[in-house]
Amino acid sequence: MQQSLSQPTTGSLVLLPVLYMVWSDTLITDQELISLRSFLKDIDWLSDSDRKFLKEKLDPGSPPEREELEFWWQAIRGAVQERKTYADLVSVGIDLLQQKAPEEAHTFPLEKVQADLGKLEKQLGIVGKSAALIFKSEHHNISTGYQTRQAFDTAKLTALLDGDRKPLIDELKTFISQKEFDYVDPGDLATYRNQVLDWCKILADSGYGSIGFPEAYGGKDDMEGYFLVMETLSYRDLSMVIKFGVQFGLWGMSILSLGTKKHHDRYLHAIGKLELPGCFAMTETNHGSNVKGIETTATYNHDSGSFTIHTPHQHARKEYIGNAALHGQMATVFAKLIIDGRDYGVSAFVVPLRTANGRLLPGVSIADCGRKMGLNGVDNGLIAFDQVVIPKENMLDRFSSVDEQGRFQSPIPGDNKRFFTMLGTLVGGRIGIPRSANAASKSGLTIAIRYGDKRRQFGPEGGKEIPILNYRMHQRRLIPLLARTYACHFALDYVTARFLNRKEAEMQEIEALAAGMKAYVTWHNTAALQECREACGGKGYLSENRIDALKNDTDIYTTFEGDNTVLLQLVAKSRLSAYKEQFENMNLFTIINYVAARTKTSITEKNPLIIRNTDEQHLLDPDFHLSAFEYRENSILDSAAKRLKRLIDEGMDPFDAVNVSQHHLLTMGEAYIERIVLEKFQEKIDHETDPEIKEVLKKLCDLYALYQIEQHKGWYLEQGYMEGVKTKAIRKMVNQLCWEIRKDAVPLVNAFNIPDSCLSAPIAL
Amino acid sequence: MQQSLSQPTTGSLVLLPVLYMVWSDTLITDQELISLRSFLKDIDWLSDSDRKFLKEKLDPGSPPEREELEFWWQAIRGAVQERKTYADLVSVGIDLLQQKAPEEAHTFPLEKVQADLGKLEKQLGIVGKSAALIFKSEHHNISTGYQTRQAFDTAKLTALLDGDRKPLIDELKTFISQKEFDYVDPGDLATYRNQVLDWCKILADSGYGSIGFPEAYGGKDDMEGYFLVMETLSYRDLSMVIKFGVQFGLWGMSILSLGTKKHHDRYLHAIGKLELPGCFAMTETNHGSNVKGIETTATYNHDSGSFTIHTPHQHARKEYIGNAALHGQMATVFAKLIIDGRDYGVSAFVVPLRTANGRLLPGVSIADCGRKMGLNGVDNGLIAFDQVVIPKENMLDRFSSVDEQGRFQSPIPGDNKRFFTMLGTLVGGRIGIPRSANAASKSGLTIAIRYGDKRRQFGPEGGKEIPILNYRMHQRRLIPLLARTYACHFALDYVTARFLNRKEAEMQEIEALAAGMKAYVTWHNTAALQECREACGGKGYLSENRIDALKNDTDIYTTFEGDNTVLLQLVAKSRLSAYKEQFENMNLFTIINYVAARTKTSITEKNPLIIRNTDEQHLLDPDFHLSAFEYRENSILDSAAKRLKRLIDEGMDPFDAVNVSQHHLLTMGEAYIERIVLEKFQEKIDHETDPEIKEVLKKLCDLYALYQIEQHKGWYLEQGYMEGVKTKAIRKMVNQLCWEIRKDAVPLVNAFNIPDSCLSAPIAL
Repeated sequence: MQQSLSQPTTGSLVLLPVLYMVWSDTLITDQELISLRSFLKDIDWLSDSDRKFLKEKLDPGSPPEREELEFWWQAIRGAVQERKTYADLVSVGIDLLQQKAPEEAHTFPLEKVQADLGKLEKQLGIVGKSAALIFKSEHHNISTGYQTRQAFDTAKLTALLDGDRKPLIDELKTFISQKEFDYVDPGDLATYRNQVLDWCKILADSGYGSIGFPEAYGGKDDMEGYFLVMETLSYRDLSMVIKFGVQFGLWGMSILSLGTKKHHDRYLHAIGKLELPGCFAMTETNHGSNVKGIETTATYNHDSGSFTIHTPHQHARKEYIGNAALHGQMATVFAKLIIDGRDYGVSAFVVPLRTANGRLLPGVSIADCGRKMGLNGVDNGLIAFDQVVIPKENMLDRFSSVDEQGRFQSPIPGDNKRFFTMLGTLVGGRIGIPRSANAASKSGLTIAIRYGDKRRQFGPEGGKEIPILNYRMHQRRLIPLLARTYACHFALDYVTARFLNRKEAEMQEIEALAAGMKAYVTWHNTAALQECREACGGKGYLSENRIDALKNDTDIYTTFEGDNTVLLQLVAKSRLSAYKEQFENMNLFTIINYVAARTKTSITEKNPLIIRNTDEQHLLDPDFHLSAFEYRENSILDSAAKRLKRLIDEGMDPFDAVNVSQHHLLTMGEAYIERIVLEKFQEKIDHETDPEIKEVLKKLCDLYALYQIEQHKGWYLEQGYMEGVKTKAIRKMVNQLCWEIRKDAVPLVNAFNIPDSCLSAPIAL
Repeated sequence: MQQSLSQPTTGSLVLLPVLYMVWSDTLITDQELISLRSFLKDIDWLSDSDRKFLKEKLDPGSPPEREELEFWWQAIRGAVQERKTYADLVSVGIDLLQQKAPEEAHTFPLEKVQADLGKLEKQLGIVGKSAALIFKSEHHNISTGYQTRQAFDTAKLTALLDGDRKPLIDELKTFISQKEFDYVDPGDLATYRNQVLDWCKILADSGYGSIGFPEAYGGKDDMEGYFLVMETLSYRDLSMVIKFGVQFGLWGMSILSLGTKKHHDRYLHAIGKLELPGCFAMTETNHGSNVKGIETTATYNHDSGSFTIHTPHQHARKEYIGNAALHGQMATVFAKLIIDGRDYGVSAFVVPLRTANGRLLPGVSIADCGRKMGLNGVDNGLIAFDQVVIPKENMLDRFSSVDEQGRFQSPIPGDNKRFFTMLGTLVGGRIGIPRSANAASKSGLTIAIRYGDKRRQFGPEGGKEIPILNYRMHQRRLIPLLARTYACHFALDYVTARFLNRKEAEMQEIEALAAGMKAYVTWHNTAALQECREACGGKGYLSENRIDALKNDTDIYTTFEGDNTVLLQLVAKSRLSAYKEQFENMNLFTIINYVAARTKTSITEKNPLIIRNTDEQHLLDPDFHLSAFEYRENSILDSAAKRLKRLIDEGMDPFDAVNVSQHHLLTMGEAYIERIVLEKFQEKIDHETDPEIKEVLKKLCDLYALYQIEQHKGWYLEQGYMEGVKTKAIRKMVNQLCWEIRKDAVPLVNAFNIPDSCLSAPIAL
């Protein structure tokens, strides 16, 4: 076919690359084609036949055929020298001329040709250097060549993450990698729920269920171990984790913490073995966050020495109760204690629900919550009590009891204080949940980052497709989340240690820490898994790749054990309170107390030297990061306090004042937690001795800090704490850190050391 | 029991409220208790017995019993006058004194008492006015009393939203409210998929499937109708919507757009009736976004007048193909056309997969994609072809064909241009998907807002619990999303109209608009449904309340019909190009062309008058909003262009330069779409004549604009386009607008007019 094509004339060869570009993508307008033709007409080194050929080939009314374009393409490609860098298209044309017509080539005024056509290209807006690349068969560049490296000892980093309890963690990872823990399809609720119960039984049989119970009751007195079990199990099926947590954490720990020796003797051993499956029945349909408002009653009957448990109406049913729909035989039921018609506030009672054969007991009716967004292996139910009578000894009487004379007794006089002391014993759940959430983030990021490292899509003209993790946006989506997951890991270790070594006087602080971390880590987890899903595209949507389950199972983490929005307000109120005891208890009165004191103190001064400092050394200085976080924390605390005081001074009702400031208060809670998270990350790095690990963790920590500052840059700019030049430099540094850490990203997720059996996702293996 | 309590002495009555506060919440430290005691010792109007009583009752080593606290509480409550406002606790104490000991009361120097104790309260940091509220039984305030109102005619707003095609929309809403469209449990894949097929058959039987096809083929030539069907069906099961879209939109429209009369005659009628279920087989495992890279081949055999369709390896299988796992009998298969060993790029072919009885044809093997995060009623599959021979006429030959002599022919010479012209005919999908997404957002917000209006939790001391939608944070979570959903609605109408009335010369612009809106609206939808889930707490997690399905079914919308990240880059490149034709086609060369031209133009100047303007009138001025959006759009466009040019001038490889600027480019695409969305919303309001509707839409539009500005405030501050005083004023205004719109929120979601049958969520009915 090629013989039918008109051969370019010798002189037009130098223009062939331009000609090809013009037509291959229809880049320029008809008008421009015409002026191009007139420009060429005036060039003195073109022959008449050149002019004739070019005139024909630049006719907008008669574009070249595709065979002709193809023919030009082949000719140009044949002349291009792969290793040579072409500054413009005319240089390519000259090489073509010299190859096709070596004889005539030296008759051309090549310098003039170069100058004239170079000028033309500029006029047309062609950037020759990049245009010329199109004709090369290979195209190497930074984005293409970039790849994973192994710059540190992954096993050492794993050891650092796991800490002293690595043996237990490793043992558990091996344990849950057994065949019987293989994932099942969540489609059929009955099958899935029974499977989850069976898994929990295997765990109980091996002593993991009772690990946190006293040795006298078959346990190991190892609460730290309990948290690590919750966390490590979270690499496997999350319904199993929650069912496990309901049985051993909520049901078991409520007996341990709210009951006394008689209850421990009677129930704990059987609970730890999962011979007595039970529930934790606190939440009611109408009262979730506001536990004080629950309406179930426990009416004391002095004559018979019993309590009558009763659900006054449908909306006072216990709802979302794990283990209730199928397996629970008993429940710790929270109800308002009524003696002689008087309400003594919320207490807890052990109420039998079913026989060992699963038959519901008289007066108890249970509805199934049915399918949920996730956690479908957990049998949540709604429980209603119709005048169910239980013996007096079933009252969990550590904090409140009824004496021989039928009088209410409590070691804690204040109703509020008693209520929050009771709830405070359950704060462990607010540590277990974020630890589970962070494990889920680790799984999701391991899957998404390994996939991003392997998956290739698009690439430079004439080059290979590149790993999607080499794209800057892909890095920006995933790497800061990886940094934040590491940050959360160390902060969770800190909060856990504080909780395990708690003293009475620290309880308010620890409860605020746990509440705040629960909110911070679970929101991070929701965001991280959403990003992982999208970053894996269609593959991320297939259930086999696990992000589905990870995301849907953990979505409720932002709600349960306390709605995150409510929790962050508790943190804020705790921060506002100069005083302590039970922060959940704190009312407006206490806040305002604080305000009066607080507004006397002044805030950290802005440093005029740093607001414009964009030196790399400064931007990567941990002290700068921590100061910025502290400044934010203190300023928001201060301004919120002043604002509340002002609003109330102006005559606003205090409830309204708090409501008007709600957004402000949440930000305050978040700023406090972020400072803690950064501080603990930095401390960890300070103590690290391995230089490679120290280096990579320092980068992650820098990224965490700068990314958060970037997220809050609006605030920093508003405050005048930074100027635009600095926030722009920070954005650039965030991009740079993402780019650098990308090389370590796969080893960094490998250091999480999640068993392949648990990851299971084909795209991650 | 009360007789055993020591009665407060007369003088100590005025202090009882303080005493109660001190002990009920253990507010103050032991040290403060001691200094309090010494303060009181010095007061000259207290008797010795008063002093003795107070000394006892302020002993940190012996706090009062709970009965005593209760006794004080009752006494104080009995003396409080509900309608009186108390400035401090001593005022309450004086009322108590006057009630309990009216005789002695007038012997007290009440003014001095008031002054002394007022001073004490201040020292202790007690803000008396709010503290005194605790003793009142009722507590009225703004947050409590706030509620839904009906300020406009909901039906009129519905009519505005639905437009001319309201009859079709209403007809469909009635149609899908029939009993046979009731939701089914998604647990069993086989059952669910068959149900979805049945639903699509019912729709086909009623003519909805073929509505967009030419009348000659049983259709109504009504593409607008097709989009409205996709959208309205989206209030029902979303698997049904996608299966419907696969069959009639992708499979049917590919025949219509890429085929010629012989294909239309042969297939369209049967497709429209769903007698010929089919697939759209473009994506391969290794090539999703980069369609050009697909590896399936269609090799032309001149002797037999046929093509051989072949899958070269496992990763070149067609993946995620809807209708493939079970029901599809044929597929439009995209493959590289090979003639005489030469690759002519991507073309499309009709390839039979199964017999009418569902038996796979020889050479075709199909694997099931299995369970997915959502859309489990759609049978997605993986298709592999092993040398499958199809007749020559099965080539969809509108844009490329093989002539009688076995030569490749095309009306479009350039390979790139042909490829993108072909894909361009499928742009309708990028309109259908965001319309479906926005319908899902409407459903989610209707559920969450109605629930927020009814659900009560917490409340002021002594007051009733308040609707959670009265909380400022709850408003901030939901109301801006409601505003953005309205904004997207009008912008989608605009893009749809542009598409329906398109001219060839506008195609690049319309494709960019559709791609950008698809990304913008689907990301909005993902964010909105996440917020709705959390805003509904545990109820939002139960599948019965529908947010589960809405969220999981639409989660993939950000990926399919083009990954959002990729699409926004296409938008950016289109914006960078001063020239047009096929923007997807644009390579670096074209971009750089543009840059040369663009950098000559200067950017809108900042107006020094407005950067500090915080007047309400200015903040609510639509011109200010639009200018701010336009400024952002143009500045980012300009800076990205300059940056690309600079990087390349500095010698960076162009592919790397684009990669380095990727975040910048995405922001550019987003800024462009946001400006369009705002502009169209404002235009709609300008044309509205009903004053009440105009008012509420104006508020929504103001909120949309200011909320987006608030989201981008870091950028505006960096640019010096606004100062901190102004961004703070904007934050305040956003809060204020949320508060105002909250009253209209329920009518605003009611105006979406989603049938209860479709919403179905018990919490929303």
